[in-house]
Amino acid sequence: MNNCADDLAAALEELAIFLGGRLSSNEAVRDHHAGDESWHDPQRPDAVCFVNSELEVSQVLAICNKYRIPVIPFGTGTGLEGGTVACNGGICVDTSNMSSIVEVNEEDMNCVVQPGVTRKQLDSYLRDSGLFFPIDPGADASLGGMAATRASGTNAVRYGTMRENVISLRVVTADGTVVSTGNRAVKSAAGYDLTHLYVGSEGTLGIIVELTLRLHGRPEAVSSARVYFDDVDGAVNTAIQTIQCGIPIARVELLDAAQMQAINQYSGTRFPEKVALFLEFHGSTESVKEQAETVGEICQEYGGSDFEWTTYEEERREMWDARHTAAYASMAVRPTAKAYATDVCVPISKLAECIRKTRQDVTDNSSLTTFCLGHIGDGNFHYVFLVDPDATSELAQVRQLTERMVQRAIDMGGTCTGEHGIGLGKQKYLEQEFGAAAVALMRTIKKAIDPQDIMNPGKLLPAK
Amino acid sequence: MNNCADDLAAALEELAIFLGGRLSSNEAVRDHHAGDESWHDPQRPDAVCFVNSELEVSQVLAICNKYRIPVIPFGTGTGLEGGTVACNGGICVDTSNMSSIVEVNEEDMNCVVQPGVTRKQLDSYLRDSGLFFPIDPGADASLGGMAATRASGTNAVRYGTMRENVISLRVVTADGTVVSTGNRAVKSAAGYDLTHLYVGSEGTLGIIVELTLRLHGRPEAVSSARVYFDDVDGAVNTAIQTIQCGIPIARVELLDAAQMQAINQYSGTRFPEKVALFLEFHGSTESVKEQAETVGEICQEYGGSDFEWTTYEEERREMWDARHTAAYASMAVRPTAKAYATDVCVPISKLAECIRKTRQDVTDNSSLTTFCLGHIGDGNFHYVFLVDPDATSELAQVRQLTERMVQRAIDMGGTCTGEHGIGLGKQKYLEQEFGAAAVALMRTIKKAIDPQDIMNPGKLLPAK
Repeated sequence: MNNCADDLAAALEELAIFLGGRLSSNEAVRDHHAGDESWHDPQRPDAVCFVNSELEVSQVLAICNKYRIPVIPFGTGTGLEGGTVACNGGICVDTSNMSSIVEVNEEDMNCVVQPGVTRKQLDSYLRDSGLFFPIDPGADASLGGMAATRASGTNAVRYGTMRENVISLRVVTADGTVVSTGNRAVKSAAGYDLTHLYVGSEGTLGIIVELTLRLHGRPEAVSSARVYFDDVDGAVNTAIQTIQCGIPIARVELLDAAQMQAINQYSGTRFPEKVALFLEFHGSTESVKEQAETVGEICQEYGGSDFEWTTYEEERREMWDARHTAAYASMAVRPTAKAYATDVCVPISKLAECIRKTRQDVTDNSSLTTFCLGHIGDGNFHYVFLVDPDATSELAQVRQLTERMVQRAIDMGGTCTGEHGIGLGKQKYLEQEFGAAAVALMRTIKKAIDPQDIMNPGKLLPAK
Repeated sequence: MNNCADDLAAALEELAIFLGGRLSSNEAVRDHHAGDESWHDPQRPDAVCFVNSELEVSQVLAICNKYRIPVIPFGTGTGLEGGTVACNGGICVDTSNMSSIVEVNEEDMNCVVQPGVTRKQLDSYLRDSGLFFPIDPGADASLGGMAATRASGTNAVRYGTMRENVISLRVVTADGTVVSTGNRAVKSAAGYDLTHLYVGSEGTLGIIVELTLRLHGRPEAVSSARVYFDDVDGAVNTAIQTIQCGIPIARVELLDAAQMQAINQYSGTRFPEKVALFLEFHGSTESVKEQAETVGEICQEYGGSDFEWTTYEEERREMWDARHTAAYASMAVRPTAKAYATDVCVPISKLAECIRKTRQDVTDNSSLTTFCLGHIGDGNFHYVFLVDPDATSELAQVRQLTERMVQRAIDMGGTCTGEHGIGLGKQKYLEQEFGAAAVALMRTIKKAIDPQDIMNPGKLLPAK
């Protein structure tokens, strides 16, 4: 990386010409763009650009490419694996000004948005339409960032992840070229799938400047259910059986007993403090009733207790609010601690075993407070550890536990991350998961598209 | 391409060492591997390898790469855009011996197959399980070929195409390296999406040697319906409204009046000879009844007549048999003619207009017999032209009509092919559809992964 001070100064000078006050080297601004919501140490970029248009992104990249200055794309900074940490300095490109919803095509059930639009913004915008966008990571992330990390959330079991819900993209590659990866047709057999190459590329192949997203019809009716189990196996088997029966379940969230206890303490609720499944069904009035009742029967088979279902919005909201406050509830258990979250995803047949062994490992080898949550219809679960940021021994414990958790998942045919991405934190597992040949192929692609390695360098691909 | 006779002879000599009789230069064998089921003129490869294993594929590619010999992957030869035509000579790699179903994981609802397994073979194998694989192109294609062309079929509106149903692949790249693109987790945020890069790459980036496929639960109940319209608009609006209502329709096939007439003549059926919609619903007994009845009401709104629905298997089979014989029924109308088929896909809001304008163009500018069929839930439709293979004027007419049809689709925000692929026939539209920058990016990727351009050269990417 030829990132000497002269080159940086020259690049900043050229950038200032058209960005003016939207190029900032202010300390506070750089601090704000130094990291994300994870445990990764923040590192500041040399400057931050607040871009307003595709053309500006193109100009910024052309200049940075000319001077070989690292570029770090930045949405809301709500990532969980250090994807926005400026570990090589450089220019942070903040897309939050690019926040227009360009069009909504109701008949085609899609929309075109700029990358800075957040999921809640889109949700509000669509509120009065018959449509919604289903991907809901915990944070109010930007859609550009969500595409870049291949994000998902609680609805993925029915509606898929960003992988299934991005129809096409406009991206700017390292040298400033604007590329359109597709069109508005819902399927195509034409050419290489550039859309999917960019979804999940974490800013290392270019910057997403426009997204065409699939929308889904708002269900006529919604029902929610909850049920409790003595162990994880009963909950996971219920999910497996439900899916195998072809019930088009919309959400199936697992929360462990510690998580339920934390929620009760935080929200004043009185849920049983056992392994819980929170479920949701979408469909016609008749079908959401039928789905809930069928799942009720399945729960009985697998030892579920206190099964309840409802279509009342207030009751449903209470339950999902509890689910959505889970992270805050966890942190309130030990307010001085920092939450260290990691996620893996395994074939669902291995899920109960993977969670059980992870819990055993945590119990045997630490005294940390932990919580387990899962989007278990996908085989995806999170472990959250509460860690005293000043206690290096605790952090060391967590690192060992998560390392073993990831290795366990990979050994079971799974992935080191179901939805958080690789960023800085999971690089060392990439080769273990895919093999050396696949990682070499990824490097070949990166080198071909970004030969000077200016796009988010140091992320996703491990150093050789 | 340094494909001189000496190099070819040297390569054949090395291949013969381990392939023995499974390397053939026999004329009949080469003829059989010279093309596909399309109108593209066949061109013979210099020799055909019948490979038995991933290791052999790797050895073949390493040798061909050393001598810069073109390699044409071959499944069943049922493609429709010339993808297996050996337009630069070289070695055809026939994967039909690699026809093992490696494993079926019922709990995880996936299976692992070799590339030569055909869709009907997999269907038979799964018959007694609770699972099925939904992708059903017309032909009994190989699953490797289906992944390579990003195939789909009648179930895509509910279950997606090969794009959504390939979980991961093992591929051999140009130099013989074996790459695993993923694992068995249903979702992952780890690394570049190599799986999707290979799905739809038409053998130009390597050879698929193993596929992990998503399976789906067999529905508890199935209902089918049919209804007729005076024009395409009513049929398309019915499909749009059905999807917008959130009805999880499994199939929605459009057949035009000429097609219905051909089917009646061929099969002795007595369907009304109007624009027909054939529909299918999957779900519980209750829900397939409800879905069919709701769609019945929607049909009325849009001028549908003679709506009938049934859950009886015999009645359903009669209807779908009629749909599946459509191609043969069409050809029987003019037995001396050849069928020339093309497909496009547009946003569904433009579908009626696109079909209407295409029909007008056909009527105004030719006297050819044509049929229109559509997987209209996806906005995808096919036009089939019956052409006297000796009448150059007819062929010229078809070329002009299909060219305008494709341009119309692209102008409407659609794609030049929804499911047939680019092959030889659609190359000239690639730049028009994606723009020069995207095609240049595709070339960059191709060049990085296959620097000597040995993998199916002359396909997908237009000559510069």
